[in-house]
Amino acid sequence: MPRRPAEPGGRAGWAGVSIVALAGGVGGSRFARGLRAAAPGAHLTVVVNTGDDLTLHGLRISPDVDTMLYALAGIVDEARGWGPRGDSYRCLAALERLGGETWFQLGDLDLATHLHRTGLLASGRTSSGITAELARCLGITGTVILPMSDDPVETWVQLAEDGRWVHFQEYFVGRRAEVPIRKVRFQGLEAARPAPGVLEALAAADLVVLCPSNPFVSLAPILGVPGVRTAVRSARNRGAVVAGVSPLIGGGTVKGPAARMLAELGHEPTAAGVAAQYADLLDAFLIDPIDAALGQAVQAQGARPIVADALMRGRRGEARLARVLLRATLGQPARA
Amino acid sequence: MPRRPAEPGGRAGWAGVSIVALAGGVGGSRFARGLRAAAPGAHLTVVVNTGDDLTLHGLRISPDVDTMLYALAGIVDEARGWGPRGDSYRCLAALERLGGETWFQLGDLDLATHLHRTGLLASGRTSSGITAELARCLGITGTVILPMSDDPVETWVQLAEDGRWVHFQEYFVGRRAEVPIRKVRFQGLEAARPAPGVLEALAAADLVVLCPSNPFVSLAPILGVPGVRTAVRSARNRGAVVAGVSPLIGGGTVKGPAARMLAELGHEPTAAGVAAQYADLLDAFLIDPIDAALGQAVQAQGARPIVADALMRGRRGEARLARVLLRATLGQPARA
Repeated sequence: MPRRPAEPGGRAGWAGVSIVALAGGVGGSRFARGLRAAAPGAHLTVVVNTGDDLTLHGLRISPDVDTMLYALAGIVDEARGWGPRGDSYRCLAALERLGGETWFQLGDLDLATHLHRTGLLASGRTSSGITAELARCLGITGTVILPMSDDPVETWVQLAEDGRWVHFQEYFVGRRAEVPIRKVRFQGLEAARPAPGVLEALAAADLVVLCPSNPFVSLAPILGVPGVRTAVRSARNRGAVVAGVSPLIGGGTVKGPAARMLAELGHEPTAAGVAAQYADLLDAFLIDPIDAALGQAVQAQGARPIVADALMRGRRGEARLARVLLRATLGQPARA
Repeated sequence: MPRRPAEPGGRAGWAGVSIVALAGGVGGSRFARGLRAAAPGAHLTVVVNTGDDLTLHGLRISPDVDTMLYALAGIVDEARGWGPRGDSYRCLAALERLGGETWFQLGDLDLATHLHRTGLLASGRTSSGITAELARCLGITGTVILPMSDDPVETWVQLAEDGRWVHFQEYFVGRRAEVPIRKVRFQGLEAARPAPGVLEALAAADLVVLCPSNPFVSLAPILGVPGVRTAVRSARNRGAVVAGVSPLIGGGTVKGPAARMLAELGHEPTAAGVAAQYADLLDAFLIDPIDAALGQAVQAQGARPIVADALMRGRRGEARLARVLLRATLGQPARA
């Protein structure tokens, strides 16, 4: 059982503690940043969803990895939670004049990341190697960022209106997630292998965090990479704590279509409905006081509810929430 | 023999006259624009070099076609002769911060063209179809722009310093053409087919113009596409006039490494040296008064020298030079 750091928040206290966070984009990157701030000196690995990667105009785009990179590098546009701060859209405007597809927001600065990744992939580099290089160039320290897999996985959703399958980004960005969906599928997931370092990090983890990300299109692909869900379970079996943070507060999300998707896919659109997606994994699940009444339903999923203000207001809010989770998990026996 | 238009410069006068210009980038686009201005109502087809196309960061870039598009659309940066006016380099600066390759200038506006072309190529469209669509979106009228081929051709040069072969753009842009070269080769040229419309345009031409472009890396690839050189000769045999314009004035070029390359590849670095590259084709060759003494050498190549101020100063200068060529060729019997 991982020891409680002598001085929580002190570097010495967290040395030797290994934390693995599974994360999507905006919410996941905020919580990951909170963990880094709240556990300085810990060994923090963030495994990021690549299921919503897409190829557009010949460029390979990895939205969640980029959001994580920008957030941890401190250059993300804090207001919207993704993309580099101060980005411009001169290229996109020119593309529109040429009659090109412009439903996906491509900022001039953001494009540099896509160009660099695409070029390096074409030269035979892997996503994980490229991610490590980007992290280094962006000056990211204190966190290892791993894409969930170096193998391409793509998320497609079936629209309820006409049964048509579209790429997740076409639904999410192109249709602003405003149309109901029926099903989600992950192309390439069955054949995908965990990126180098993913299983190793889970094998060494004291704490595995399921970040406040979309359970269906952010965490399900990560947990669906063959071997990953089993590795999380194994970590738990050898004494690591597995804790989730609800992306839903009062039945709604801060960002993204998770609430709608829960209902559309036949689940309860609440924090308890999210916890149910990870019932085989969770030791603890953090929910907002507004959802305190769901505590029993969370408990029924086998997870100890942690009730705390789940809204991350700015960087201090991220760190506060992460600190709450760390204290409630690493600070006391995780299971009776 | 094509008739002299009743009123040179009047639209009625040029109706029914077909002109085909073979062109590279900056000089070629300026002369093509001059032809359009000087022969309103003529059927003008510009066949553009694609031998210096390249793939960079996963994007397919067609520098000469883009220069031609921007110039004929009136949006080119007139000072440097290529790229859209008012372009910015925010993406390139971000790419540099990421440690990416930045030797090739990629403007934020220019990138839109590369993205659109790359996306359309990936969807199975041809270069010629894409070029036509770009021309339409940019509002180009009065000129048909054809890439020389829809098949990929790449120009490589051998550096004299170490015998290494590099892509032409790496020499031209990356090394600023400041290092001597030994040889030029065109990958894919033997298997390339003329783009749809190229041979048809030549078969209907009253005048074929070899624009003031680099003879080795702009016009040689076009003439080297199997069938093109023969088609130019056939046009001449049935009475069309074939006329060139020297890219060299007083042994130097306005832009680009043509003069250096002539010397490095063992040719006379003069207008006559350029004319010698097309000795089998030319009826007439326009040289600058400063090169008047080369008239005999040009004549020795079988071409009638046309002596006129060959420097294109602005758009009026382009039209003036084109008018001189048109009068000296279509206006009188081309050959005795």
